[in-house]
Parts: sequence; C-alpha cells; structure tokens
Amino acid sequence: MRESGISEEELFSFLSLKKGEDSRYHHVLSSMCTLPHPVAVRAHQMFIEANLGDPGLFRGAASVENLLVERVGSLLHHPGAGGYATSGGTESNLQALRIFRKMKGSRRPNVVVPESAHFSFEKACDILCIEMRTVPCDQTFRMDPDALQERLDADTCCIVGIAGTTEYGVVDPIETIAGIAHDHGIPLHVDAAFGGFVIPFLKRPIPFDFSLPGVASVAVDPHKMGMSTIPCGCLLVREPSWFNLLNVDTPYLTVKQECTLAGTRSGGAVVGAFAVLEFLGREGMRAVVEGCMKNTARLIDGMETFGYRRAVTPDLNVATFEGGAVPPGWQVSWTRRGHMRMVMMPHVHRSVIEEYLKETGEIHA
Amino acid sequence: MRESGISEEELFSFLSLKKGEDSRYHHVLSSMCTLPHPVAVRAHQMFIEANLGDPGLFRGAASVENLLVERVGSLLHHPGAGGYATSGGTESNLQALRIFRKMKGSRRPNVVVPESAHFSFEKACDILCIEMRTVPCDQTFRMDPDALQERLDADTCCIVGIAGTTEYGVVDPIETIAGIAHDHGIPLHVDAAFGGFVIPFLKRPIPFDFSLPGVASVAVDPHKMGMSTIPCGCLLVREPSWFNLLNVDTPYLTVKQECTLAGTRSGGAVVGAFAVLEFLGREGMRAVVEGCMKNTARLIDGMETFGYRRAVTPDLNVATFEGGAVPPGWQVSWTRRGHMRMVMMPHVHRSVIEEYLKETGEIHA
Repeated sequence: MRESGISEEELFSFLSLKKGEDSRYHHVLSSMCTLPHPVAVRAHQMFIEANLGDPGLFRGAASVENLLVERVGSLLHHPGAGGYATSGGTESNLQALRIFRKMKGSRRPNVVVPESAHFSFEKACDILCIEMRTVPCDQTFRMDPDALQERLDADTCCIVGIAGTTEYGVVDPIETIAGIAHDHGIPLHVDAAFGGFVIPFLKRPIPFDFSLPGVASVAVDPHKMGMSTIPCGCLLVREPSWFNLLNVDTPYLTVKQECTLAGTRSGGAVVGAFAVLEFLGREGMRAVVEGCMKNTARLIDGMETFGYRRAVTPDLNVATFEGGAVPPGWQVSWTRRGHMRMVMMPHVHRSVIEEYLKETGEIHA
Repeated sequence: MRESGISEEELFSFLSLKKGEDSRYHHVLSSMCTLPHPVAVRAHQMFIEANLGDPGLFRGAASVENLLVERVGSLLHHPGAGGYATSGGTESNLQALRIFRKMKGSRRPNVVVPESAHFSFEKACDILCIEMRTVPCDQTFRMDPDALQERLDADTCCIVGIAGTTEYGVVDPIETIAGIAHDHGIPLHVDAAFGGFVIPFLKRPIPFDFSLPGVASVAVDPHKMGMSTIPCGCLLVREPSWFNLLNVDTPYLTVKQECTLAGTRSGGAVVGAFAVLEFLGREGMRAVVEGCMKNTARLIDGMETFGYRRAVTPDLNVATFEGGAVPPGWQVSWTRRGHMRMVMMPHVHRSVIEEYLKETGEIHA
C-alpha cells in the first residue's frame, strides 16, 4: 500500500484505463448478466449506504426489500411466500438446500439434481456436506423424470428442478417433477435464477412456480433478467417460518436474529431491483421478454441459414448451435457438450444480432 | 406485481419517502458500517455493471481486484498472499473454515473460537457441519490462551483469533495464540474484519497478521473501516494454492474454475474499495484512524465524568460502558453482557460526540 495517497484526478484517470479493459456489453453474447436498467442505477445510488444486515437502522430500505419479496411472490403465484434478497443464485440455492437438510435431519443427506444444474449446486453440496446425485437429461436437455425416481431414497432431502437452464435455456418438466416430489413428500426447489423473470412474461407461460403444490422454494435473480444492479438474488419459500431453521442470534444489532447467509447486505441493489419491477410493471417486462425471444428466434433462423443447426429449440432466450464460427471481438461461450451458446439478454438489441449475423456470414463465406 | 408500470417521477418520490425512513448515519453509534467515502461511491458508479464472477469479460475490474488483494496483502506483511474480494466478513470466515476443513479431512472436524467471536462463526459452522468449541475470555474480554490449549484435539482443523472484537473492540493475544497454533500445526484464522483497517494505522500497532508464522489466513472488510461501498470483504490466505481446494469447474464462463462462494460478484464495490486505499494512502488512513481513536478516548472520558465507567479500555474505536443513558434519537447497542456499546466510525465526528455527551448530560442531570 502506498505511503501517500494520490489525487482524485490521477486515481480516476487510472480507473478509466481499467474501465477500458472491461468488455462493453455490446459484444457480450455469453453472459446472463446485462446492463442494469437506468432506474436501478439511480435507485442504487440513492441507497448506496443502506445495509440490510441491520434493518432497524435502514427501515426504509428494509421495507422495500419486503415489497420486492411480495412482488416476486405474487408473480410466482404465492404472495405470502417467505423470502429475502440474497447475493444471487448461488446463495439462494445454498440456503434452500440448507433449509431442507435441516428439515430432513438425516446423517447422510442427499439432493437430486439434473445433470444440467448450474455449478452452484456442486459448490453448495460441497459446503453443506450433502451428497449430490445427478439425473440424466433427455435429448432436449431436460431432466428425465423416470431417472429421477430411481435416485430418490429415504435420505433425499430435496429435489432440484431447473426453470431455465444456464446452458440450453430449457425448462425441466417441473409439473411432472413437482408431482413426484409431492408424492414422495420431498421438497422441490426450483432454480429459476434465470427463468424466473422470463417465464411469467412469455406468451405461453410454462408451469414452474408455487402454483404447483410440490414446489417448496424458488430462486429468482433480479440481477439477471430483472435488470437490477449486482448483487441481487431472491430466495422464496412456501412457508415463511422455514427461515427460522436458519436463525442465529444477533446481539448488538437492531434485530435479534437473522437467517441470511451474509451479514452486511447491499440495500442499493435491492431497492434497484424493486425499482425496475415498479417502473416496468408486467406490461413492460412482457415487452422486454418478447424482444429477447424474438431476437433469439431471429438468431437461430440466421445461424441455420449458414448451416449451423440449433442444438435444441429453447424455451427461453438462450440459443445453442452445433458448431458456429465466431467473428473477432465477440464473446460467446460453449456448453459442456461442445455446443456454441449465446444468451439474448436485453442489451443484445436486434441491430446487434444483425451485425453478428453479417460478420458471421463474412467469415463463413 | 403491477400490471402497468409507474412513472419514474412517481417511483422516485416513493423511494424518497422510503429513504426518509432510513437512519442518517449522523446519529448511528451502533454500526461497524459507515458512510462510504466519496471516491468509493464515484468508482462504484463507474463500474456499476462489472461482474467479477466472469473476470474474462471484465478484465479491468478483475485486475483492480488483484491490485486490492496485493495492497491489503502488503499492509498485512505478505504481499504474496492469495485472496479475493468476498461479500463481507461472514463469507471470508466461512471460506477460511472451508479451506481448513478440507485440509484436515477429518470426519468430525472442530474449530476453536473465543466466546467473543462474531455470530458469523456460528453460522459458518452450522453451514459447514463443523463443531464449534468456544474458549472463555479473560476480564478484558480477550481470549484466554490457556483455555484454548485445553480445547484442541486431533480433529481441530482451525483456531480462530479476533483482531478487533465486535462487542468490545479488543484484540486477542494473537502473537501467543499464533505460537500455540504453530506448535500444534493447526492453522490460525484471524478475523480482522473490523480491525484490519485500524490496527496497521495505530501509533502502536499490535501484532496480528502474516508477520506471525502461525497466521494462516486473515479476513479484513473494506466495507467497514475501509469506507468502501457494500459489499466488499477480503479473505487473504498465506498460500495462494489453498484456494484450489475450493475450485469447482465453471463451464460457459471465461474462466474454467472458481473458488469464490458467490457466482456473480459486484465489481463496483471492489473498485471502490481499491479507490479509497489509493486515494488516502497509509498517511490518510492513519489520519482517519487517529481521529476515530481520539474520539473514542473523548467519549470514554466524557461518559466517565457522568459516572458511566468504561467496561474495558479498548484497543480500537469501540467504547463500552457499565450502564449509560441514551438520549432520544440516538442509535447505540448493547453487548451480550449488558454493556452499552458505541462504535466511533469515521462518520462520528468530534462534534457528534460533543452533541451526544451534551444530551447525555441533560438527561443525566
């Protein structure tokens, strides 16, 4: 660390250089994050010092967190759901598994996840000392419910279904899986970190939420398709009292107990997430999602005219291909099965796709 | 969720009302968070969309994270320490215990912490399935090293020492504890979430960091005395390769593996933390800490003139008292032993203390 500080001018000219090394989102087709909505940025700035870890000091920000949970709960057909704003999908998934591990009380608990599950489940199971059992997917990269049944046993504390897989943008057959979970008396956690702000706004929504009796908890990330600033995820559970299982005593704070993973938590990002939902409403979100879905269809059509076949017809705004050339300067990614993958986030405008297709055509020719 | 969105004007007039319900920091004497430094806010804004969870997309922000770790490492006498920016002290403590649990490989691991440890250790041990053994403190609320020795056994994967306790602002006898840890071959994790940005800037620094051979890892929070925006903690470990124990594969990202707890991570807060350290330098930080320590001494003197005796003479900027009247409108807190507790953060200026003492005198009279 320097002995003497540097001037603000010198500091920010250095940081501007560093900023120049970051990708501009314009050419990023590989991320499930996006440029935050301007109202999220403005709201974040307004609440920049708010710490939700001590809610009695920040009663305004804390009440906005409650409103956010209520709004997301109503979107997921359960306005009375319990919930809080997490740091993102990983924390949401980990905390859900932690609840169900405690409920089960087994000495050697296991959780059953599709092989398409996000790597955060591997992390969470490692941290929580839970055995992770994976279920193969079918040809469309969706969990196979028959294979699921075979993996359940008396120590299974939770089943995980994915509503919008990271790699292929498909939704597991949640209705069938929820039925199996319900029949076995095993809670179903739905990872809708990506899909939670897409599926409800599709022309033909796919059942995935608390409207299905087997669904016990849902993870949804405002900082993905909710266009909030980082960090903001949401974990919602069917019974608010389940969070009591996670409580630790918190002396010297304005509350006596807390159930979250982190202590200090960003109020700014949470108020920002709420701001986007209020500003856009369901109508506005439908327009955003419709745009992303049209762009996904356009990209798939365009790529197929070059002979790059889709790996699957996605439910959501993720396009994957059997091969594909990448024009210089673009960020795309690859699935574990070797398919090229692009996510049509809100920053990927139609003109961006046309530019991408044009450049692909040039290197393809 | 609303069907139609509301106007930006309507939204922000609602959020302004909510903002009015938050405490202004002016009267908050109970928090280890503070108003972020203006350069942190400006830098956060500049990098508001940066996601450190996908560092290949945000190379500039990621390189600033590395610089932050290097700066903090040099401050803690180990410029080659491994590290990353966490969401705060809870994640730092959890990840440190996770590393040492894996290193030990015991079936029934335990960790030994002083009874003064922050409640995040209870949370972390619950999550990680580690037995938590507590060591009593002496009359000055510091861990008793003799009692520590009695609690160690072959399954002890980590000893925890606190450099700046949340309740009393005292530093455990880290040098002695580090010697015990070294002799037993057990890693010592130092929770300096609060003290890490105070102790190095004291007129007489107290040994607590990597200069002691037994210290294996240190947690330090920029979003406490480092005056950064939320969320920014740092976990530093003696051997960078230890983080490999936590790696999971991360397909579809620009990196192949990651060792962090969260996936998506705020670049803005991390660049902000770096900005404060660069802008102030050691000189500037010494001035901040000197001010906080003088204010602590002044508060203790003032309270003792009213007959409210100090509970202990603190090492850091936390003042605790045997009883004390609280003038209306002020936020103070209470320790588990029933002592009144106030934290002299940078937002608590001398004039604030004089105001507090004056009002205390009025209700005391």
